[in-house]
Amino acid sequence: MHKIGIIGATGYTGSELVRLLHSHPDAEIAIITSESYAGRKFSEIHPQFKGIVDVTLKPADDIKSVQPDLVFLALPHGVSMDYAKDLAEEDIKVVDLSGDFRLPSRELYEQWYDKTHTYPEGIDRAVYGLPELFRDAIKGAQLVANPGCFPTGSIVAAAPLVKEKLVDSKHLIFDSKTGVTGAGVKPKLVTHFSNVNENFKAYGVKTHRHTIEIQETLSIVGKENTTAQFTPHLLPVDRGILTSAYGIPVKNITPGELKQVYEKYYGNEPFIRLQETDPEIKNIRGTNYIDIFPVLDERTGNIMVFSAIDNLVRGAAGQAVQNMNLMLGIEESRGLNTIPLRP
Amino acid sequence: MHKIGIIGATGYTGSELVRLLHSHPDAEIAIITSESYAGRKFSEIHPQFKGIVDVTLKPADDIKSVQPDLVFLALPHGVSMDYAKDLAEEDIKVVDLSGDFRLPSRELYEQWYDKTHTYPEGIDRAVYGLPELFRDAIKGAQLVANPGCFPTGSIVAAAPLVKEKLVDSKHLIFDSKTGVTGAGVKPKLVTHFSNVNENFKAYGVKTHRHTIEIQETLSIVGKENTTAQFTPHLLPVDRGILTSAYGIPVKNITPGELKQVYEKYYGNEPFIRLQETDPEIKNIRGTNYIDIFPVLDERTGNIMVFSAIDNLVRGAAGQAVQNMNLMLGIEESRGLNTIPLRP
Amino acid sequence: MHKIGIIGATGYTGSELVRLLHSHPDAEIAIITSESYAGRKFSEIHPQFKGIVDVTLKPADDIKSVQPDLVFLALPHGVSMDYAKDLAEEDIKVVDLSGDFRLPSRELYEQWYDKTHTYPEGIDRAVYGLPELFRDAIKGAQLVANPGCFPTGSIVAAAPLVKEKLVDSKHLIFDSKTGVTGAGVKPKLVTHFSNVNENFKAYGVKTHRHTIEIQETLSIVGKENTTAQFTPHLLPVDRGILTSAYGIPVKNITPGELKQVYEKYYGNEPFIRLQETDPEIKNIRGTNYIDIFPVLDERTGNIMVFSAIDNLVRGAAGQAVQNMNLMLGIEESRGLNTIPLRP
Amino acid sequence: MHKIGIIGATGYTGSELVRLLHSHPDAEIAIITSESYAGRKFSEIHPQFKGIVDVTLKPADDIKSVQPDLVFLALPHGVSMDYAKDLAEEDIKVVDLSGDFRLPSRELYEQWYDKTHTYPEGIDRAVYGLPELFRDAIKGAQLVANPGCFPTGSIVAAAPLVKEKLVDSKHLIFDSKTGVTGAGVKPKLVTHFSNVNENFKAYGVKTHRHTIEIQETLSIVGKENTTAQFTPHLLPVDRGILTSAYGIPVKNITPGELKQVYEKYYGNEPFIRLQETDPEIKNIRGTNYIDIFPVLDERTGNIMVFSAIDNLVRGAAGQAVQNMNLMLGIEESRGLNTIPLRP
Repeated sequence: MHKIGIIGATGYTGSELVRLLHSHPDAEIAIITSESYAGRKFSEIHPQFKGIVDVTLKPADDIKSVQPDLVFLALPHGVSMDYAKDLAEEDIKVVDLSGDFRLPSRELYEQWYDKTHTYPEGIDRAVYGLPELFRDAIKGAQLVANPGCFPTGSIVAAAPLVKEKLVDSKHLIFDSKTGVTGAGVKPKLVTHFSNVNENFKAYGVKTHRHTIEIQETLSIVGKENTTAQFTPHLLPVDRGILTSAYGIPVKNITPGELKQVYEKYYGNEPFIRLQETDPEIKNIRGTNYIDIFPVLDERTGNIMVFSAIDNLVRGAAGQAVQNMNLMLGIEESRGLNTIPLRP
Repeated sequence: MHKIGIIGATGYTGSELVRLLHSHPDAEIAIITSESYAGRKFSEIHPQFKGIVDVTLKPADDIKSVQPDLVFLALPHGVSMDYAKDLAEEDIKVVDLSGDFRLPSRELYEQWYDKTHTYPEGIDRAVYGLPELFRDAIKGAQLVANPGCFPTGSIVAAAPLVKEKLVDSKHLIFDSKTGVTGAGVKPKLVTHFSNVNENFKAYGVKTHRHTIEIQETLSIVGKENTTAQFTPHLLPVDRGILTSAYGIPVKNITPGELKQVYEKYYGNEPFIRLQETDPEIKNIRGTNYIDIFPVLDERTGNIMVFSAIDNLVRGAAGQAVQNMNLMLGIEESRGLNTIPLRP
Repeated sequence: MHKIGIIGATGYTGSELVRLLHSHPDAEIAIITSESYAGRKFSEIHPQFKGIVDVTLKPADDIKSVQPDLVFLALPHGVSMDYAKDLAEEDIKVVDLSGDFRLPSRELYEQWYDKTHTYPEGIDRAVYGLPELFRDAIKGAQLVANPGCFPTGSIVAAAPLVKEKLVDSKHLIFDSKTGVTGAGVKPKLVTHFSNVNENFKAYGVKTHRHTIEIQETLSIVGKENTTAQFTPHLLPVDRGILTSAYGIPVKNITPGELKQVYEKYYGNEPFIRLQETDPEIKNIRGTNYIDIFPVLDERTGNIMVFSAIDNLVRGAAGQAVQNMNLMLGIEESRGLNTIPLRP
Repeated sequence: MHKIGIIGATGYTGSELVRLLHSHPDAEIAIITSESYAGRKFSEIHPQFKGIVDVTLKPADDIKSVQPDLVFLALPHGVSMDYAKDLAEEDIKVVDLSGDFRLPSRELYEQWYDKTHTYPEGIDRAVYGLPELFRDAIKGAQLVANPGCFPTGSIVAAAPLVKEKLVDSKHLIFDSKTGVTGAGVKPKLVTHFSNVNENFKAYGVKTHRHTIEIQETLSIVGKENTTAQFTPHLLPVDRGILTSAYGIPVKNITPGELKQVYEKYYGNEPFIRLQETDPEIKNIRGTNYIDIFPVLDERTGNIMVFSAIDNLVRGAAGQAVQNMNLMLGIEESRGLNTIPLRP
């Protein structure tokens, strides 16, 4: 039984980590910390856990005293980096769920996040935690940068295209639609019920930080400079991201061949389900699955790939547990075998 | 490992049974039947199960060939009774999720359901499957009538009041609000998105069949003729029933004493959570919990009890599995320890 | 053309007043004020008005300079009272949409609102602005207290019962369910999308301020001390209140007689629609209508009355305009003849 | 006062026409027909109209007896064509809201609609009713083909780009998201509440009929063969379409120049609002407005245009009334000056 610490468990990512780890057969939650709520019960902050997880929240300083095998950082970007540095010095394995270590260079981080990075060595050390693409590196990592929610769905959708150099790398479009929980647990104008309900809009056009994460990761994966046009939109639902990706083929390809490409890369993946019809976010709700549907439109010549994930599970806590399993030598899908909650 | 059959798995109740039983440590699904979809995969009908439960649906006639230890009937009322009779002859244990065996007499059934009952012996034989009230009888039953969704939340809310004869048994009011899945998987005008979304209304006022189920069960529990005024309303959500029950005290009681009454009856129940604030349906989503909050308004003198359940789990499939556990000698909460999916 | 001022137009009530008055044939908006946004355009705060109402917001001090015929106070309780006093001194007609003048006595106000009242003469002077019950007094009033949203639907539902002394005045129950906009324009935990969406709960049980407003008004209307048990619940919709009222008859009555009672009081009212089936909040969305459905359950002996209103229109801005029409000698329904927006 | 007929008023488009025309100052509804409900009241079918529009529905044969100045056909495609032919013979002006006359040729119609066209002369005679692009032709038309909901938002978004030949006409992408009312009033699996709520997906990928309508109209407008990649998605909301259009510039252009292009074409249009931030569907709900936001991403070089419409108003009934105004010599925006219903 591995001992796990969670730093910062008062957001949605934190509560999802607890939900998943509570019934993980090979891991036990040794400590949950919160600076603002230390001393209170976890179930006071997340009342759905009443009678299930009633442990007292600790200050983050207590983390080392429990000698954890692995620590999850469920903190805002800019806050994670110092904890990551500290834990690296103790050689404690870390999965960081913030954006602090996802980009390949300090310069890109400081440009897109508008913040000085205090642990640039961590950027070099960190492995990008997308298991289907970087499984082996994750297994040996001390620090894993858990991918952003939008990048997870977008990169997995497009990776086979860029790996096989099937599409024009300068004109990749990712039109993504996300549930509201991506905006976090704190009330804001943008998450006020009547601003979301019966509404729909794009946001962060041209400037969303996940843009550069998608672009840089695909450039690495495809070994070629790639340009990503990424547009997030806000859905009046709690959970789920559907991404509609568009590419312009640079080679002749048939629908059957396109399907074979996806089967080659993902056919044996435990958490990727290749679909033959339009993915729906409700079919993966609460789970770690990625549903993917690649389409060639022979009339227009375009390739489209649709992907559906749960932003809190595959886009955050679930993928983090998948990374934990790899890092600790646990079977990759342990603790993640839940069935989608539909309806 | 107990072998379980599910007859009629194409509705929401059926898919919830499969969701819960698939990961039950002591039970395995030996057969799932459907008359309309026999020969097709379960995951074709419920695509969220793709890659998880892909078994082929069988005709109901195949049920006996697998020699099940227990069969769930997830069928409409009027259809269940014949299967129940048939399985009784084979002495196979049955949990029936329809309304066919919930009322104490054939007369009441035929009056409220407007249908001839073809297996009246079953009415006498059946045990009403509300474990917190009838646990011992359930353990020995061959046929359990799984309670209706509204009755579950209403009866559990009011049972301590009628048992202790705290309130006027002629003036019990149950104002209930349910999610849409209670209306089933088939498209109808009443479940058409734009008729439900941004809308709210009462329905079945005076005539809903769960009225008599609530009233008769409370009469048995309280050993006194009880009159229930039950009003269901339709919420624009998928899952969940909140019931607001109102009673007029016939004895002096303090808030502290009221609380003690509920602790006496439910303090040790694994699936009842006594709350000190207003229950929310999202705090029990996807689980077998009943959250209950009893309140005495000293200004008006009234007692109010609020209860929250998931209509598909505690109001149907979850309670059915709880009954199965009791009937098969399995620990009562096995396979039901999921954490509420919130947000 | 009457000149109208609106003080405090940055909440939902303010924007609804502007929506209704903008196309009112006999009234023109002379000034809209806001302390926090003075100098900015109204359509910057409420972007749906872009190109329609782009006027600049003024400080409240400018109100007298436009010599308005009537002023709406769309302010929080506790803030309204000083403005009302000030405008009374200038003998300017006022419709106050806060709770400051709705209760019959300073003592009740200070007890339920936990606040000192600085203009108690206003309490005596104010007329309760529910036109169907107090039409003549409203016509002559300088100060009208616009009713609360819940009280509007509850009082109109029960008034015929208490006037005719048909029910036990000690056991009136109002189980109300409201859309989220009743909680205002500011983001809070209770209005955070994921706390409302797919959720439902009671709130303010025993303590909600509208309780005393309902009780006192019905006591006046029925000329008898009345006890109201009022329970609000929060619906995951923007607009609309459905109230399910329950009473215990103290006289023999038939369903036909009950219907006649309601026709007697409301049969000729332009904004009350007597229904013969369950009212739905979507059928009155965006309008000033009250849909009412009285029911006698002969099995239990109880009377139930269901009422549906739009909390922002009939529960606030629409009723305010109806009061304005009466106070200024305009035909009562002018400017209020919109058709419900359904679907 | 012009006399207007509506054929087929039992769908959402029909009820929206009645909502708009009921308060139109220069038009009166002379007859509403329905084959399935003739003899019943309009308000029985659409209960929100109770007490407002209670007229009796007539059979379509009665239409000529009222000598209408203009008739709206609110019928399914394939059904409209015969009525259109019949009314043309009487020289009665017609606005057809189906897809029967929107495409430029019989061949395209029969290919994409999989149906024989029985009135091909109507295809030649019909004017495409998008006033901002074809205003003069509409004024003189006997038969106007009211545009589809998706094409309205997509074509208006992209027309300035193709007119000015700013983008590669072979790579136009329209990623559209629509509310559920676009799927009509009849319950189907795809409109079943629990299949839409908390869900999101693409549908009709590659094959949706609006694809060819967008492509052909833009080819006419831009005088160049254009290829449209159109992907509709289903939002869990009642009303509204947001389209995110993507184009690859073929000329150098600055953000300021792009803005000027849109001002040149739309700056004086009464129903187009050029925005400087992301359009939201709730800001145009219930109205005839099109909110448009053109964006140049200098990093990627792509042009994006976002447009928001109400699918039932600007995408159907409102645009039909706008066309009626033009055809009958009424000022274009008469009867269409409602304010968006937000929140």
